[in-house]
Amino acid sequence: MIKRSYYLLLVLLVLLSHNIYAQKDLAQYVDPFIGSEGAGHVFPGASLPYGMVKLGPDCGNKTSNTGYAKNEEVHGFSHTHVSGTGGGAKYGNVLVMPVVGDVKSIQPVSLYRDAIATPGFFSMQLTDYNIQADLTVSHKVGFHKYTFPKSNQSHIIIDAGSFLGDSIKHAYESQEFIGSEIEILSNTRVEGYTRVRNGWGLGGEYTVFFSAEVDTPAESFFLSLDNRIDQNGTVAVDNGTKAKAILQYSTSKNQQIQVKVGISFISAKKARQNLENEVSHWDFNKVHDAARQQWNDVLATINIEGATDIDQTIFYSSLYRTMLMPVDRTGENPKWHSDEPYYDDYYAIWDTYRATHPLMTLIQSERERDMVRSLVDIYRYDGYMPDARSGNHNGRTQGGSNCDMLIADAYLKGLKGIDYEAAFDAMVKNAEIPPGGTEMQEGRGGINEYIELGYVPAEFEPLQSTNPGNTPKLYERAGTRTVEYAANDWAIAQVAKELGRESEYIKFKRRAGNWANLWRDIKCDGFRGFIWPRREDGTWVNKFSAFKAGSWGNFFYESNSWEYSFYVPHDVASLIDSCGGQKLFIQRLDHFFNNNYFNVTNEPGFLSPYLYNYAGQPYKTNALIRSIIRENYNTNEDGVPGNDDAGSMAAWYVFSSMGFFPNAGQDVYLIGAPHFKEVTLNLGNNKQLIIKAKNLSEENSIIKTAKLNGKSMNRAWFRHFEIANGGLLEFEMTNTPTDWGQEMLPPSMSEF
Amino acid sequence: MIKRSYYLLLVLLVLLSHNIYAQKDLAQYVDPFIGSEGAGHVFPGASLPYGMVKLGPDCGNKTSNTGYAKNEEVHGFSHTHVSGTGGGAKYGNVLVMPVVGDVKSIQPVSLYRDAIATPGFFSMQLTDYNIQADLTVSHKVGFHKYTFPKSNQSHIIIDAGSFLGDSIKHAYESQEFIGSEIEILSNTRVEGYTRVRNGWGLGGEYTVFFSAEVDTPAESFFLSLDNRIDQNGTVAVDNGTKAKAILQYSTSKNQQIQVKVGISFISAKKARQNLENEVSHWDFNKVHDAARQQWNDVLATINIEGATDIDQTIFYSSLYRTMLMPVDRTGENPKWHSDEPYYDDYYAIWDTYRATHPLMTLIQSERERDMVRSLVDIYRYDGYMPDARSGNHNGRTQGGSNCDMLIADAYLKGLKGIDYEAAFDAMVKNAEIPPGGTEMQEGRGGINEYIELGYVPAEFEPLQSTNPGNTPKLYERAGTRTVEYAANDWAIAQVAKELGRESEYIKFKRRAGNWANLWRDIKCDGFRGFIWPRREDGTWVNKFSAFKAGSWGNFFYESNSWEYSFYVPHDVASLIDSCGGQKLFIQRLDHFFNNNYFNVTNEPGFLSPYLYNYAGQPYKTNALIRSIIRENYNTNEDGVPGNDDAGSMAAWYVFSSMGFFPNAGQDVYLIGAPHFKEVTLNLGNNKQLIIKAKNLSEENSIIKTAKLNGKSMNRAWFRHFEIANGGLLEFEMTNTPTDWGQEMLPPSMSEF
Repeated sequence: MIKRSYYLLLVLLVLLSHNIYAQKDLAQYVDPFIGSEGAGHVFPGASLPYGMVKLGPDCGNKTSNTGYAKNEEVHGFSHTHVSGTGGGAKYGNVLVMPVVGDVKSIQPVSLYRDAIATPGFFSMQLTDYNIQADLTVSHKVGFHKYTFPKSNQSHIIIDAGSFLGDSIKHAYESQEFIGSEIEILSNTRVEGYTRVRNGWGLGGEYTVFFSAEVDTPAESFFLSLDNRIDQNGTVAVDNGTKAKAILQYSTSKNQQIQVKVGISFISAKKARQNLENEVSHWDFNKVHDAARQQWNDVLATINIEGATDIDQTIFYSSLYRTMLMPVDRTGENPKWHSDEPYYDDYYAIWDTYRATHPLMTLIQSERERDMVRSLVDIYRYDGYMPDARSGNHNGRTQGGSNCDMLIADAYLKGLKGIDYEAAFDAMVKNAEIPPGGTEMQEGRGGINEYIELGYVPAEFEPLQSTNPGNTPKLYERAGTRTVEYAANDWAIAQVAKELGRESEYIKFKRRAGNWANLWRDIKCDGFRGFIWPRREDGTWVNKFSAFKAGSWGNFFYESNSWEYSFYVPHDVASLIDSCGGQKLFIQRLDHFFNNNYFNVTNEPGFLSPYLYNYAGQPYKTNALIRSIIRENYNTNEDGVPGNDDAGSMAAWYVFSSMGFFPNAGQDVYLIGAPHFKEVTLNLGNNKQLIIKAKNLSEENSIIKTAKLNGKSMNRAWFRHFEIANGGLLEFEMTNTPTDWGQEMLPPSMSEF
Repeated sequence: MIKRSYYLLLVLLVLLSHNIYAQKDLAQYVDPFIGSEGAGHVFPGASLPYGMVKLGPDCGNKTSNTGYAKNEEVHGFSHTHVSGTGGGAKYGNVLVMPVVGDVKSIQPVSLYRDAIATPGFFSMQLTDYNIQADLTVSHKVGFHKYTFPKSNQSHIIIDAGSFLGDSIKHAYESQEFIGSEIEILSNTRVEGYTRVRNGWGLGGEYTVFFSAEVDTPAESFFLSLDNRIDQNGTVAVDNGTKAKAILQYSTSKNQQIQVKVGISFISAKKARQNLENEVSHWDFNKVHDAARQQWNDVLATINIEGATDIDQTIFYSSLYRTMLMPVDRTGENPKWHSDEPYYDDYYAIWDTYRATHPLMTLIQSERERDMVRSLVDIYRYDGYMPDARSGNHNGRTQGGSNCDMLIADAYLKGLKGIDYEAAFDAMVKNAEIPPGGTEMQEGRGGINEYIELGYVPAEFEPLQSTNPGNTPKLYERAGTRTVEYAANDWAIAQVAKELGRESEYIKFKRRAGNWANLWRDIKCDGFRGFIWPRREDGTWVNKFSAFKAGSWGNFFYESNSWEYSFYVPHDVASLIDSCGGQKLFIQRLDHFFNNNYFNVTNEPGFLSPYLYNYAGQPYKTNALIRSIIRENYNTNEDGVPGNDDAGSMAAWYVFSSMGFFPNAGQDVYLIGAPHFKEVTLNLGNNKQLIIKAKNLSEENSIIKTAKLNGKSMNRAWFRHFEIANGGLLEFEMTNTPTDWGQEMLPPSMSEF
């Protein structure tokens, strides 16, 4: 009877919940573990879309980027994490750990089994203690349910001194402890904070405040300061010590004790307010259901038909990952007070500008608008828009100032509600004002030289550094910088044109051609012309290889000249000319892909498979995309080809499997290879973009004909305005090469 | 009988207190109001030496730099202030105001009378309410004693939303509110914080936490949020609102209610800890006596004999002002945790390097060592040493990177306990790495051009700015920068030499001659050769006048070419050559002083009166110094000639009246004109420098002969090592020009 009435209640709730009659439970297809192993670095714990709290286990030596490390011992569950990142670990703050035993003698860690992760939920069995841990979240609250064994030495430890990377002292990009504070306010409430600096991005200090409440009064409670027990203490003042609160219980078998932890970047009282505002009750399932519902709401922005369960799992798990970051911290900015939205953990825009943000512009345009507004507000108060940002500090520019691409993308696609005049100022600052001592954090390093020479010269000039082990180069990544600065300049030119700033338009359009200043007439594998290191005096560096990929301190970042010599997204027509014309360009692309020069694990090549479209052979794109997906994306825990980079790999997949891809910073989409018989994108305001692929099969992966909004379309691209108010894109598929899409090539610089 | 026993107790206390048998009450000569009116901007409230809490009234429209504004209405007494500064106001946080009446209807402000200020004490009668307010301080605690009239509507308001400059919205260098928080913990305790950004130096956010305790339980208490009363509220969470706590009392006539307020930059709990550590009792007089004792201890580092009461007042009030800033915030750094000392409110080193820091090196060398260590630690974590710093952010470079001068000064004078290798790295970073986007805050703006051209060119290049009204120039202050960068380069060369870094020594010694690149062969008032604006292409700017003084956006900062053309402190010999030799140089100095071209109100001319020594006519210095002091320093409230600039004007006076002056960044002191028959400087470790002036009188102001440590000395300068272990400097004075001091001129660059 109980079960039956519960079922009826559930049905009632389902009927009452909004929009549910039309909505599938798409969350069932999301597997948060995809990408959590291997290079993916995907956070598998519990989070809402863009959720401030990301609650998950911190494992092993606490150096994993996500905290999680499969089969390694668990230190507890902390409330702040990132997803998909490389480099030094960040966050891992406010750790809660249930243990059984004498806390004075045991190491409070445990192995685990039966880890389960679904959107907004994470659970595992802590085998050392026989404790079941179930976790769910609201936006700013972590909700823990611990099921204990029978013991009079059951404990819940709330650790304000724990963070990721703690075991690596004074290493480059390793987090450094500043201080922590704890007050045990009663046998049911503990508050405090952790203050940490550095870590990924070499940022300054950030403080994570918390207010934790337990549903069961502790029998006793005490503090631990730098791992020394203070039996009678209830207040640990911040004197640079690591403080823990320990709550003790005598539990019966399977006794559940719940903990809810409000988080804030403003104050502990604000954390308590967040807790009270978001979770005023003790119903774990209610929080969990609401979390799943929020995920279902955002997953429902795209519907796919005719996909296998495996494909649905890859698709919705990918879509899920595109919404883990950045993090919505509106109302939680400790650095200034404004009415603008505030997002943090852009990590990095160098990755996400290419696909993630254009995806949001289609399916969550108000979210994207708010992110762009937050970037402009960061410029207003912190001086530069970030290329990456974490812990309230700009940090770790990768190549160009690619926030410029977001601004242009938003403007050209008609996003309203953004102060584009201020945004333009922010772009121009990137393009004109050297960040100097902070070039690791923001702006364009080597911009003076770029302006003077038309390229960033190859010479390396080591900078002084304040961080141990940090020896950046003033002109490091000169190749990446030059080609990306040129693309960024085109983005500025586009916005200048729209804003009627003629002289800036002319200036930055001219600068957008600067990639050609590094184009050397040199041969490799029989192909002529490559982006090449060039010295300040104009001479070329001879000891260099087109196959030489690099990282921070090298000419190219995360790829080589073969890949970067395809990166002129705003002027592919000129690039084709430089390569000797369409025929040679296609041969070059063929050679590139056939010989596995294409690097699927990083972002510089995101656009490369679509470049056939610019040379009139989109059918090659069609086939290529399908094979890239098949070979690199699957449902395994290592089913993401490289660092997911805040959902960038995921966003590439989402677009590519739907059959088109944005040329970011433009209003242009390139047509690729549809994977599903029908895809519906909900654009908001009851507008939909529907993509149908007639005769689609594993063999029939090539587009034969296309119609846009009912009209025949013999071009392999379209503009945003053509679908912005809804659209119908119909393909007829075939299994042999076609000459479809040759009529009108995608626009290049001079044609905009 | 009561009086008698009180007297005996006092005698006993006096006998018990350390060192008292030898110590005068020098605090009696300190008048904190000197400089509080006019341009001085001296903070007249209660502070310890380098005290973190500076407790004083905030008056009028709260735009005064010190909070205080004579005869204007008082808003209350806040705990953080600066002294002697120009530019936008800073601090004025955590304001406490006693009022009588219906707080719902009255404006809680009052006129006042009977203001009294002595070291560590401030009091006034609030005439609107008939309340007597007495204030004293420990290092991190403000102690208030309010004597109320009879009323059942007596209130104490604790305002976490008040700060200086609040009435100027979005103006350049005006403080901006971020948020505040208050909790009324009981009828005797209120805690919370204020978070503010911007203000002087255009710095980022800072947070001032407090824990306030009253000795009398409030009858009732409530909150005010953005000036709306919340009758039942006890917790104001930080949602960007301005929060006040209001405590209500029914007072009998003359009932005293005391408030003690602990301050912290870390947390409210830390503020409470500071309160408990420093003031565990309710004895106002005990706190006051301890404060006065601390002042007497530091004032006793210099003893003067044969001075009038007025001269003693000017002298000890000046010595007092040299120790108000910077502020010792060791243990209160929210940005990183290290074992180094932490000082904030360097405001600015451009002012204080010239005299204040060299003074501390003599009389409080451990304090000076700690300041230098704090500067190096700021470099380690924030990337650059500050030229100025406030609210935990570097801010507002004035000219050169004059922290370099402090490092050289400390090294050459043998200060131990400083990591000079790290300090050298910090200097080199200033000299080599352009701060770019943060050049307003740190480093050397235009350094690339300075390195390339040998001078900062005259062209003005407006920078983008994130602050309203802020339109700095990339090459603004090009003249000031160039001559100061050259002096700074010499400081680096000196340290390089001592550290055995030969190539850097040669490089920076060469750069130290760069002032000459702006030396134009042009005539003014018959004298040839002036520092002059020069363009990037090498041509001179013709539309310019040697009399044109400027500020931020101009070629010279705070003075003109006549003054700056004397600023080559490291190579006066070459300067004299450039001026056409000793005779012409002396004529030029005569002309400069006789025609009032000398600007006594700002720091660029601090060394100018002593330059006669370099040309073999120290007797002219003797007479000049005496007249500058007589005409510009007195005991009036406007008795300081310009902004006191964190005690810079005061330190110039202290040195000059003692009879010598440091050439900062060198180990050289120049002899001026002794003002007192005998001066004893306690150098620490029982070592003393004694200066005796035989036959000194108002007429006999010129040195006839001198002896150093018993040996005749016919030079008008000495080195630090000659007096570092104690010394005796004896002068015989006369009333006519002498040829004393011609034998050996002070050293210039090539002679070090």
